[in-house]
Amino acid sequence: MDIAALLGKATGLAFVDCSASSETIRMLNQVVDMGCCVVLANKKPLTSTMEDYDKLVSYPRRIRHESTVGAGLPVIASLNRLLSSGDPVHRIIGSLSGTLGYVMSEVEDGKPFSEVVKVAKNLGFTEPDPRDDLSGMDVARKALILARLLGRRINLDSIKIESLYPDEMGPDAMSVEEFLGSGIVSLDNDVQERVKRASLNGNVLRYVCVIEGSRCEVGIQELPKDSPLGRLRGSDNVLEIYSRCYNKQPLVIQGAGAGNDTTAAGVLADILDIQDLFP
Amino acid sequence: MDIAALLGKATGLAFVDCSASSETIRMLNQVVDMGCCVVLANKKPLTSTMEDYDKLVSYPRRIRHESTVGAGLPVIASLNRLLSSGDPVHRIIGSLSGTLGYVMSEVEDGKPFSEVVKVAKNLGFTEPDPRDDLSGMDVARKALILARLLGRRINLDSIKIESLYPDEMGPDAMSVEEFLGSGIVSLDNDVQERVKRASLNGNVLRYVCVIEGSRCEVGIQELPKDSPLGRLRGSDNVLEIYSRCYNKQPLVIQGAGAGNDTTAAGVLADILDIQDLFP
Repeated sequence: MDIAALLGKATGLAFVDCSASSETIRMLNQVVDMGCCVVLANKKPLTSTMEDYDKLVSYPRRIRHESTVGAGLPVIASLNRLLSSGDPVHRIIGSLSGTLGYVMSEVEDGKPFSEVVKVAKNLGFTEPDPRDDLSGMDVARKALILARLLGRRINLDSIKIESLYPDEMGPDAMSVEEFLGSGIVSLDNDVQERVKRASLNGNVLRYVCVIEGSRCEVGIQELPKDSPLGRLRGSDNVLEIYSRCYNKQPLVIQGAGAGNDTTAAGVLADILDIQDLFP
Repeated sequence: MDIAALLGKATGLAFVDCSASSETIRMLNQVVDMGCCVVLANKKPLTSTMEDYDKLVSYPRRIRHESTVGAGLPVIASLNRLLSSGDPVHRIIGSLSGTLGYVMSEVEDGKPFSEVVKVAKNLGFTEPDPRDDLSGMDVARKALILARLLGRRINLDSIKIESLYPDEMGPDAMSVEEFLGSGIVSLDNDVQERVKRASLNGNVLRYVCVIEGSRCEVGIQELPKDSPLGRLRGSDNVLEIYSRCYNKQPLVIQGAGAGNDTTAAGVLADILDIQDLFP
């Protein structure tokens, strides 16, 4: 530990983690101790244990992680501004997966779920194994990051997660080929039924994250066609934030929530944002 | 000038201007020279001459002015993030007046313009003289602040401004009472005509600011009913930002764009945001 760190000062070095790995967590613990700033596009370190999390954010001014939620969309920056102004956030609801946003708006148009997923995979919208998206785990990590930002001391396993495929079609039970070839087709009717039922109520289905009080969950919800989330088409992300200042009508942030360009732009803006800490 | 200023360092003092006056400009010039940070809710200093503006932003890290546009909505912070990441912004279109947003969505419902303005005044949505809102000057100041943020070296008089009342009904020609009592009624038919014409094209009228290339203007535009701006109801503000990263679909920021609470929250978040400059 050098003299700057002993004095509790920032060293003027930033450690930028754009991996998708859990293996950086130990290294991040060390660089925080060394007085480095931390910029993350990697969600894993922020969704590890509370102990790891507390360590990571122990100098709140030295960490930025805009691109962990909604890529470069100014979600974290905006939430931090609300929180630092003392405006209590009591509800967040959002569609934070471009992949699932695309899937839900396509099945809304009557296309079979299995077909939509295959097209999404061919368009490069999904992970190589689309179940990584359909499991909801990626959205759950984003929800956890937002919930912890709001001060909730919870872990990934306290989040209610709805998977879009049953356990018996999981990666342990069948290959990607089997899943796409025969497994997923058996889910089509069920999805179509749900879409129809929602439509009869004038609603649409969206895969959303909801954080409200002690509740933190991700899954399919029936939402009014005529709401920011209901109107969402394609792969855009949208986040509605309700607070004391944004009470009846939420603060809404919407736009592309994935992509190399915007993710990199978010990381770069984060790095520039901490420049005042560099001596 | 003290030693900190001589060294080009920030003094650790912030000068916060929440007035609506031009008279602070000279004082602001001085505090910038003294090495102070500046936080503004006041639009006037940023919409003065280019010389005053250049002086004010001469240390870009030491100035924040979120609440000058859309109150506490994270408009300036988000634009600054885009710009600092090198993402070129090529088009901004927005509804930045809660008052005019309310007026335009009420006349869309068939209510007479004069009635809507009177109700808005009674609800406290307008300035004591509603012509201060209807002139478009307040929106033009916000447009100028955004345009200068994007690097345009223009002044207020280079902005094309559409006023919602004719010169012969201006404050020099008649009192507020005369304007509201007899003047404004004569505008009802014209507004109703425009609303109808737009409606025949499936469009609605919105009072917007547009910044694109060398173009910077504020006024009524016909917009698709089914666009973020067209769907806007009541007094919410909305801003659509088009850049390289947000190309086909814009980055959208929406929510309450006026009110004491959210304006104060924006100022407070700005003050906290510059804390790293305080030794």
